[in-house]
Amino acid sequence: MHILITGAAGMIGRKIAENLVTTGSLGGRPVTKITLQDIVEPHTYGSEETAIFPVVGDMTDHALIEHVMAERPDVVIHLAAVVSGEAEADLDKGYRVNLDGTRALLEAIRRANYAPRVVFASSIAVYGPPFADPIPDDVELHPLTSYGTAKAMGELLVSDYSRRGILDGISLRLPTICVRPGKPNRAASGFFSSIIREPLKGEETVLPVGEDVRHFFASPRSAVDFFLHAATMDTEALKGHRALAMPGVSASVGEEIAALREIGGDKVVALIRKEPDATIQGFVHNWPANIAARRARDHGFEAESDFAGIVRAHIEDEHGGKPPILA
Amino acid sequence: MHILITGAAGMIGRKIAENLVTTGSLGGRPVTKITLQDIVEPHTYGSEETAIFPVVGDMTDHALIEHVMAERPDVVIHLAAVVSGEAEADLDKGYRVNLDGTRALLEAIRRANYAPRVVFASSIAVYGPPFADPIPDDVELHPLTSYGTAKAMGELLVSDYSRRGILDGISLRLPTICVRPGKPNRAASGFFSSIIREPLKGEETVLPVGEDVRHFFASPRSAVDFFLHAATMDTEALKGHRALAMPGVSASVGEEIAALREIGGDKVVALIRKEPDATIQGFVHNWPANIAARRARDHGFEAESDFAGIVRAHIEDEHGGKPPILA
Ligand SMILES: NC(=O)c1ccc[n+]([C@@H]2O[C@H](COP(=O)([O-])OP(=O)(O)OC[C@H]3O[C@@H](n4cnc5c(N)ncnc54)[C@H](O)[C@@H]3O)[C@@H](O)[C@H]2O)c1
Ligand SMILES: NC(=O)c1ccc[n+]([C@@H]2O[C@H](COP(=O)([O-])OP(=O)(O)OC[C@H]3O[C@@H](n4cnc5c(N)ncnc54)[C@H](O)[C@@H]3O)[C@@H](O)[C@H]2O)c1
Repeated sequence: MHILITGAAGMIGRKIAENLVTTGSLGGRPVTKITLQDIVEPHTYGSEETAIFPVVGDMTDHALIEHVMAERPDVVIHLAAVVSGEAEADLDKGYRVNLDGTRALLEAIRRANYAPRVVFASSIAVYGPPFADPIPDDVELHPLTSYGTAKAMGELLVSDYSRRGILDGISLRLPTICVRPGKPNRAASGFFSSIIREPLKGEETVLPVGEDVRHFFASPRSAVDFFLHAATMDTEALKGHRALAMPGVSASVGEEIAALREIGGDKVVALIRKEPDATIQGFVHNWPANIAARRARDHGFEAESDFAGIVRAHIEDEHGGKPPILA
Repeated sequence: MHILITGAAGMIGRKIAENLVTTGSLGGRPVTKITLQDIVEPHTYGSEETAIFPVVGDMTDHALIEHVMAERPDVVIHLAAVVSGEAEADLDKGYRVNLDGTRALLEAIRRANYAPRVVFASSIAVYGPPFADPIPDDVELHPLTSYGTAKAMGELLVSDYSRRGILDGISLRLPTICVRPGKPNRAASGFFSSIIREPLKGEETVLPVGEDVRHFFASPRSAVDFFLHAATMDTEALKGHRALAMPGVSASVGEEIAALREIGGDKVVALIRKEPDATIQGFVHNWPANIAARRARDHGFEAESDFAGIVRAHIEDEHGGKPPILA
């Protein structure tokens, strides 16, 4: 099998590539080739069985993406995106990458003319208030960011191109992926990960909201599983409703901290410094707190069952089971 | 007030323009100028109070639409579209006009930088099966045509650009407008109008589906009212949910025929010839039968209360109250 990943240098893309190279297979078939497309140079590590081809460039470049699709990958995992904050700050760039980029990809697939499986990374940012608790499947989408708007539009395109037989697509509405590895970033939602990640490294971190703030999470490990499952599942069973809210864990910040205490003890939790930030507190009310994801669960998608599971996955995957502060 | 209508040479555009010229006002303010934009030459009839400016050209042409927006119309009524059958047959053209055209307009409005009211003609083609009866507000959209997909995407853009303060938009999901005046066209849904329109002219017409087929309608007169109401209503009250299913009449073909018999008698109904068409019968199951439109009714949108009202509106508006066969 040949797998194409766009946005492959990003957090999820790297983990999917690593998984594919390590296991060497997808849905029981050997993975012989992976194309890693990103605007920045992706990390490349092949194996004897799996060849890795990096393609560095802007995926909104039609010639580039047509060139990539001419190799007819069996599965296309479309992750390339400008994140929420940047798409909000720069309307043109956000729509150019998040909408036109997706369209360029779908058009290149149309010209390649062989209807491959396409898995599109959508987001729970497609939902907007007032929120049901939990949010059921089949509610109208009311995105409150240009990022969420472009994701909702991408879902519609993936459905329409699938209906027309141009591709065989599925859109995954990802929960906030937590604990996001790496350095703290400037995303307004970054604290959900930082309050776990930094203390486990023995570093101080800032909590800008109250402990009652609730949001919806899945681990990077679950995210990888979602994409690999979607890459090979039976899409006929979706009956044309090709966007699925992915399962996850609804947890308050207080529950996050309780899980951290359970696993790391008081000295870890003591590294969380409360510093309320009115701007961030203003944002959080527009973020979904809990999502039923009944259809996805029925179609075999699985996530952690509680936030402690998310913390444990982080410790296993990023610290080999031994975080610095507990060493 | 200055009103811009795109797609102004079309059926609804013509009727809106005629209404504005005749009444000379909108929401209590005088209409001094109307710009009629279309790719074909629109019919122009001004009055002493209202000047009419036709702008003939393709609205996907950024320079053209920026030029039009530079005149800063107070209200933009966006009707230009490639209809369902054509958008399905020609993917490129459909998305170019229905999606890129809408985006070109919104971008031109952004550059004009004064946040005018924008009323976007969406459609009940945004809905797909399985259908609730009636379809409530706030269901997920599952368009089953590229036309419906582009309309759903347009709604999302109108909401996002409104949220950002670039414009003050509202999207109207129009029922099938019936009785559509003029010549029979090749739209698969054309028979819903033809079986009323042609017999009233004393002409034979073909009914390709069974009498139990149910669909959702509003008269051209109601459609005009929807746009004029949306042009001046308080959009704050929409609380950010800027797409509204318009009210209408749910009627089966049998109920259409009964209304025609009530008004025109048996000799009119006798002009309907039943000629089942398997292709068209296949389509109709994907069309919504009934829509609650609770929110729109709460916000002051009104339609006919039964199909006889729709037939009467047609006879008054197209035949001055006296259709040929009843003369
Ligand atoms: N991480 C989350 O919490 C989360 C939640 C919901 C949805 N998602 C979606 O999942 C996908 C992957 O998420 P991630 O966390 O790995 O994001 P990331 O920001 O780490 O990776 C995105 C990658 O896309 C690349 N990219 C940006 N513009 C590009 C362009 N024009 N051409 C080619 N590549 C381009 C970036 O260089 C980056 O490597 C994204 O589509 C994101 O919107 C992520
Ligand atoms: N009539 C209905 O039953 C119905 C139902 C739901 C939604 N709508 C929507 O309402 C709007 C008006 O409907 P209508 O029945 O008057 O349609 P229509 O087809 O009579 O008019 C559409 C007009 O758009 C113009 N147009 C097409 N491409 C253009 C372009 N590139 N640049 C400029 N103009 C262009 C056409 O020339 C035409 O005059 C459309 O957006 C339609 O999709 C109509």
